[in-house]
Amino acid sequence: MPTSSEYIKRIEQALSSYLPKEDGLEADVCKAMRYSLMGGGKRIRPILTLEFCRVCGGNLYTALPFACAVEMVHTYSLIHDDLPCMDNDAMRRGRPSNHAVFGEDIALLAGDALLSLAFETMLSPDSAGTAAEDRAVRAAGILARASGATGMVGGQVIDLQNEGKQVTADVIQQMDEKKTGALIVAAAQMGCVLAGADGNQTAAARTYARSVGLAFQIVDDILDVTSESAVLGKPAGSDLANQKFTYVSLLGLERSRELVEELTQQALSALNAFDEDTEFLSSLARKLAVREH
Amino acid sequence: MPTSSEYIKRIEQALSSYLPKEDGLEADVCKAMRYSLMGGGKRIRPILTLEFCRVCGGNLYTALPFACAVEMVHTYSLIHDDLPCMDNDAMRRGRPSNHAVFGEDIALLAGDALLSLAFETMLSPDSAGTAAEDRAVRAAGILARASGATGMVGGQVIDLQNEGKQVTADVIQQMDEKKTGALIVAAAQMGCVLAGADGNQTAAARTYARSVGLAFQIVDDILDVTSESAVLGKPAGSDLANQKFTYVSLLGLERSRELVEELTQQALSALNAFDEDTEFLSSLARKLAVREH
Repeated sequence: MPTSSEYIKRIEQALSSYLPKEDGLEADVCKAMRYSLMGGGKRIRPILTLEFCRVCGGNLYTALPFACAVEMVHTYSLIHDDLPCMDNDAMRRGRPSNHAVFGEDIALLAGDALLSLAFETMLSPDSAGTAAEDRAVRAAGILARASGATGMVGGQVIDLQNEGKQVTADVIQQMDEKKTGALIVAAAQMGCVLAGADGNQTAAARTYARSVGLAFQIVDDILDVTSESAVLGKPAGSDLANQKFTYVSLLGLERSRELVEELTQQALSALNAFDEDTEFLSSLARKLAVREH
Repeated sequence: MPTSSEYIKRIEQALSSYLPKEDGLEADVCKAMRYSLMGGGKRIRPILTLEFCRVCGGNLYTALPFACAVEMVHTYSLIHDDLPCMDNDAMRRGRPSNHAVFGEDIALLAGDALLSLAFETMLSPDSAGTAAEDRAVRAAGILARASGATGMVGGQVIDLQNEGKQVTADVIQQMDEKKTGALIVAAAQMGCVLAGADGNQTAAARTYARSVGLAFQIVDDILDVTSESAVLGKPAGSDLANQKFTYVSLLGLERSRELVEELTQQALSALNAFDEDTEFLSSLARKLAVREH
């Protein structure tokens, strides 16, 4: 079983290799794509794809183009989220956001191109050659659905339209399940599909990912209140400043922390569906629950 | 052989059916997607996919989800192109552009969601069920590549970065071949791939589409100079106002018109590769060359 840093190294090598050459007239957009895609991050989504492929008995490197595709979709969504017409964030992961470096127009197009590159990576004969075609179609279809209007983009819309409004926990949960959860669930599910897992294991992967994803978001909300900007790598207290309702503002810190613990327990239970060693995934769920940035 | 209006009717029915329901918390983005996707247009790209599938002996309705996917990609690119940080166009096809109606944030997300929906439509079991999986993977991969940094988005970057600059005909040709040509070529090629055509026919389809696409762009440039806004459905003379170099500004009106004629002849010759009746495609090439809007 690879370690987390072995996974990250292999993922980042692959991500770099899938990026377009920077030698044409369109070099600037390629540089902007590389800037954000290779700009760090925890790589949790692609790790989930690889590791679920492995615990379902698949060859995890067959899943590598698909894992990278999920990370490309995640990265494009961050670039677009930071744009002035969206959250207008000048910083991301402790350095200037994409549009602050490359301008709004190139940043917009770099996001667009990363979304196309995600599908090109999964579907081109060069990169995706080793996955069986029926599994490739299913996995890429899962990512397409999770990224769109009823998935991640839908979550961004719910987020935008409820900023500064008094909302219920149900709205926040729908927002989180779509905005961040959909992609995390898709990442895990794709790993199972690429390994040819049965429906029982795929459902367990979804439960794990949904619980981890929701816990991840609640921890984000907690850290926004309790952490300092230097540790977070982005401005702390921004939810409050933006009048965002979060789990913490609705449920309070204590209940939010309990909820993280409950969700982490759900994630750990779901791992019983797998015969292979799931130590990596259980450790990941625990680490994400107690992270500080 | 269906007529052009029969094709358009079938394409628009299918496009409408693939759009997400407008009943969730994310309804606004779904409305914005529908506004632009169902807002008219010539539907040339999806027609090319269906008709090339037919002339290669395929079942053209197998190609329908793929034809619609090309139109979704085209539509998303128009929405993003019109945004204030890009061309800042308040009008499109004779009515307010997407962001003028729904706001910049929703327009940005509607474009993003249409790109995801294109791939969902090609890859989901609901819509793409009738295409063989190997052909579906190849066709969707062609669209992904044509949409991205080395295709359509690359062309938009070349366009942006050369506005107001003295450029060569070579730069304009590269820009046009990527910005509008890549998607038109992909549309034709996908039809061939879905029909299981041989390499010879697929290459001929590419030649036809490349010639028609370039001619189409030159006609656009000519119309911008010679037509009136009411006929065009957008402001005439905008290339000049934006200091855009075009075929017309570089080669003059007369040579530009000759070039359209030469390219149209190339397109017509390429059709000799097909055994089926190609009257529809030859007529289309001729009509696009003499269109007035």
